[in-house]
Amino acid sequence: MTATDSSSTEADSSTLIHDRLDRARETLEREGAAALILFPSSNMGYLSGFQEEPMERHLFLFVTREETLFLAPEMYDEQLAAESVVSRVRTWSDGDDPTVSLAAIGDELEITTGRLLVDDTMWALFTQDLRETFPEATFGLASEVVDELRLRKDEVELEKLREAAAISDRVSEAVRDLGEEAIGMTEAELAEEIEQRLTAAGGEGVSFETVVGSGPNGARPHHRHTDRQIERGDPVVLDFGTSVEGYPGDQTRTVVFDGEPPAGFEDVHDAVLAAQQAALDAVEPGVEAQAIDRAAREVLEDRGYGEEFVHRTGHGVGRDVHEPPYITEGNERVLEPGMVFSIEPGAYLEGEFGVRIEDLVVVTDDGCERLNRSPREW
Amino acid sequence: MTATDSSSTEADSSTLIHDRLDRARETLEREGAAALILFPSSNMGYLSGFQEEPMERHLFLFVTREETLFLAPEMYDEQLAAESVVSRVRTWSDGDDPTVSLAAIGDELEITTGRLLVDDTMWALFTQDLRETFPEATFGLASEVVDELRLRKDEVELEKLREAAAISDRVSEAVRDLGEEAIGMTEAELAEEIEQRLTAAGGEGVSFETVVGSGPNGARPHHRHTDRQIERGDPVVLDFGTSVEGYPGDQTRTVVFDGEPPAGFEDVHDAVLAAQQAALDAVEPGVEAQAIDRAAREVLEDRGYGEEFVHRTGHGVGRDVHEPPYITEGNERVLEPGMVFSIEPGAYLEGEFGVRIEDLVVVTDDGCERLNRSPREW
Repeated sequence: MTATDSSSTEADSSTLIHDRLDRARETLEREGAAALILFPSSNMGYLSGFQEEPMERHLFLFVTREETLFLAPEMYDEQLAAESVVSRVRTWSDGDDPTVSLAAIGDELEITTGRLLVDDTMWALFTQDLRETFPEATFGLASEVVDELRLRKDEVELEKLREAAAISDRVSEAVRDLGEEAIGMTEAELAEEIEQRLTAAGGEGVSFETVVGSGPNGARPHHRHTDRQIERGDPVVLDFGTSVEGYPGDQTRTVVFDGEPPAGFEDVHDAVLAAQQAALDAVEPGVEAQAIDRAAREVLEDRGYGEEFVHRTGHGVGRDVHEPPYITEGNERVLEPGMVFSIEPGAYLEGEFGVRIEDLVVVTDDGCERLNRSPREW
Repeated sequence: MTATDSSSTEADSSTLIHDRLDRARETLEREGAAALILFPSSNMGYLSGFQEEPMERHLFLFVTREETLFLAPEMYDEQLAAESVVSRVRTWSDGDDPTVSLAAIGDELEITTGRLLVDDTMWALFTQDLRETFPEATFGLASEVVDELRLRKDEVELEKLREAAAISDRVSEAVRDLGEEAIGMTEAELAEEIEQRLTAAGGEGVSFETVVGSGPNGARPHHRHTDRQIERGDPVVLDFGTSVEGYPGDQTRTVVFDGEPPAGFEDVHDAVLAAQQAALDAVEPGVEAQAIDRAAREVLEDRGYGEEFVHRTGHGVGRDVHEPPYITEGNERVLEPGMVFSIEPGAYLEGEFGVRIEDLVVVTDDGCERLNRSPREW
């Protein structure tokens, strides 16, 4: 549900996209790979300007060391011309067998016996076809090449992420101000209210399904929203975001709209906030991603909530709302300026309530910049 | 963006899901396959009651001839217990290597040398892992087993599809009644208006990105919406739908809100309507899917718009808004009662306008039932 009609913005940045393609080709060569084969995905958007939802029709972008070529259903012809920087487009019509075109393209690009890096999110339906069409090829994942390019955001990307964060912040503050008005609303109604405000504030839909987890529902980290009514004193986990030109926001606050929170809540909220701050303080270039996770986890363990923190501390955010670098134990990726990720420790008390606090940060030369700035208090 | 918090409805139908699992096991046995390995998808929802968006974490459902087992991130533990009918859940924590659990499950279920049918939409990221973890297995697609089950909708599914269609119809009529009020609105504003009305009418979000294609934008079949203002006399293609308990609506009307349409428009609209009617009249059990496509195409060719009809006539609709049976040349699938699909011929005049008319139908014992009933006139 991120925006896709991005023609106007991408048209402005065709130089940027050509530069990304050049760097992708260099990496292909260095890695000894023959081609990237992308399918409608954020990688396709990043390397062509054309962003689409995954679909059951064969729509591929081939990037070899010399060539860039689309294979697409005929009805995307005009749209590709308008939105992508790639001028070579081979089309097929409904009723044709697209694997015939696939085989021809493989021969023409001379990639049938090489190492082919397919989009990480490419459907098995298509990887199966590629394996059958190119039995002598070997297969790897596009992330081997594209992650390195996408990890460090350029200024254009950072501006979009900052704007998306600012919209989240404004809506977050406005929703918090509902105060006792929110009591009696269902989670679904509040989610609807949030989504309308995101759109009214200039966002493009929602970057992921809005989370409104009230009372015991907040104890499920990936709860969405139900018809449960928000009660006085309920802690409510609010996790939402909207996109700006395809770049998403993602932030979480845990609030009590009115009344007295349940026993123990203040201590948990305070511990999670301290954990988040410790993680924020740990961010700087040269540090491993897992060190950020450890910083947050240590605080929660010290405070007696180690068992209640059941997920990683964060995830990268860019064209995808979940992308590298993952802020998790075992990830030795060294942080560099320009990387953007979430810091979102939480504690979940089954049957009672949950607390999560999340901000996006960009790594700077000597620490990090918080993209979200709304108050973190409950 | 279909609904996911479906616990209440699925809880009611656990018998139905167990029955589907039994039939899946029978088909596995008949096909000589060892297991279905599903990932968050409509197949997973259909066979377990737990419906999630695709994600980068390992979350798999294994269905063998004897067993059903989830491998899931720890934080989904409670949610799976509440929403799925599957009681065996193996969890892993962020920081663990999930492929270790994967290998152990393979041994335990004795599937490591068998034929494994992976979800058609499973990401390459995971199929790669499965191939590496089970080097002696062979791989196929879950659709080989699950399509046969999902093709014919049961009464519970049909009721949801009828309700989703009824909501689309009501919104379609209300939007058409905007008349001259719509003149000067941007496509994006009208899309927002439609989406709010869908939700207000009881729908769960949108089943796909709303299409508002005004004037020349209507000539791109998969145009979404832009900031173009609707002008007097513009033909406007409106293609939208919302979901009811995970089952989507999908219908299209082409309308002129006010003023005189451009020269030639009436003839094109009339031809598309005739093509749609011819296809509707051709639907009955025993007929091949491609015969429905031919019925529509023949009319448009006779009327001189064969070249302008650049896509297939329709697609199946169920848990996925695009699923089998595809109504396209080359598809010899024989229609049976209970199959649901769209009939949506169109004609696209580049630089001028487009016309598409779409309804969903269910095959009955002696023909078809149109699920959409709003007027098809412009």
